[in-house]
Amino acid sequence: MNLIEKLNWRYAVKRYTNAKVPTNKLNRILEAIRLSASSAGLQPYSILVIENEELKKQLLAAANNQPQVTEASHLLVFATWENITEEKVNNYIQHVATVRDMALESLDVYKNRLLGLTARNAEENFNWAARQTYIAMGTGLVAAADEQVDATPMEGFDSVGFDDILKLKEKGLKSVAIMTLGYRDIVNDPTVNFKKVRRSGEDLFIHFKN
Amino acid sequence: MNLIEKLNWRYAVKRYTNAKVPTNKLNRILEAIRLSASSAGLQPYSILVIENEELKKQLLAAANNQPQVTEASHLLVFATWENITEEKVNNYIQHVATVRDMALESLDVYKNRLLGLTARNAEENFNWAARQTYIAMGTGLVAAADEQVDATPMEGFDSVGFDDILKLKEKGLKSVAIMTLGYRDIVNDPTVNFKKVRRSGEDLFIHFKN
Repeated sequence: MNLIEKLNWRYAVKRYTNAKVPTNKLNRILEAIRLSASSAGLQPYSILVIENEELKKQLLAAANNQPQVTEASHLLVFATWENITEEKVNNYIQHVATVRDMALESLDVYKNRLLGLTARNAEENFNWAARQTYIAMGTGLVAAADEQVDATPMEGFDSVGFDDILKLKEKGLKSVAIMTLGYRDIVNDPTVNFKKVRRSGEDLFIHFKN
Repeated sequence: MNLIEKLNWRYAVKRYTNAKVPTNKLNRILEAIRLSASSAGLQPYSILVIENEELKKQLLAAANNQPQVTEASHLLVFATWENITEEKVNNYIQHVATVRDMALESLDVYKNRLLGLTARNAEENFNWAARQTYIAMGTGLVAAADEQVDATPMEGFDSVGFDDILKLKEKGLKSVAIMTLGYRDIVNDPTVNFKKVRRSGEDLFIHFKN
């Protein structure tokens, strides 16, 4: 299958079998997420990778009892930085200097541009960082399809409840979306044969040709 | 190349040659964007596909004169719905019923859930819709890499200026991100050999194993 066929194959699975995603496939999906594009390269989020059955059970009620949370092999929680702080920017610039073997001072223009973000209020920064998080989730969804691993992106959960159980507040994080990984249950998922609905190209795209 | 190799190959290109992206490749990238996951399937955005040289020149100043805008083969503008209206929800539900050949009434629960969104204020809906738009952009970036087409996602532009030139306000849209498509200029792009910087897996992921 090419990428378009894989994207047509994928859908937001409602019921999973108990089959586990093999480690090599999981690792490639996570590596794709790690390589996601991110504004200024900052990657202002963390991703929780939950395989632990007890923890998934604890989270179930806060996920509106959606069965994917406990049935699926893995649950990813996309958690966004609550704010962009000077410390985070400094750590990042240090990391760039190390990876690229550059003098720290040579990155001053870049650093000052990023430090400009710290002047915005926390809500503005969080909204910006949440959008970056969604690029990572989009990348993860395509990577899962590429591996023929089923995935369900979900927003219908109690993020405060999740943050509480996962102690995200202490880490300066807020959960914004979750995504299960596993294998569709073709017997029990009532949506398995639903035709994919997408807006037509004529409706979605506005072309300006030469 | 597999997907991971392609994601390592891609970077945010700063300078492009004048080579055009072939129509078949462009169409596959757009089709991937059209197939992007979207909460409740709503796809609350439009994508402007700009090949027109005059229009790219008109937009250049509002894009902080970043040379990618005029050098690249195509400029995509990701424009988010300003608000979620009852009319948009009704149109969408009608579309679902048509594609799936279902009675409109059978979608009442789904429709009422979506109509619930119209009770939120416009800013909240716009922020939510902007995140959905970023899933589409993330999908487009992976699809471009898959086609070995270079791409640059950009937020550093004057969205009010863009909306004005592209008459987006009249369409109920606001530009949130742009993305150029084309081919890297290996002679003139000073960043072409920069080592990719990403947070390490240890830093980015938090694992909860069994």
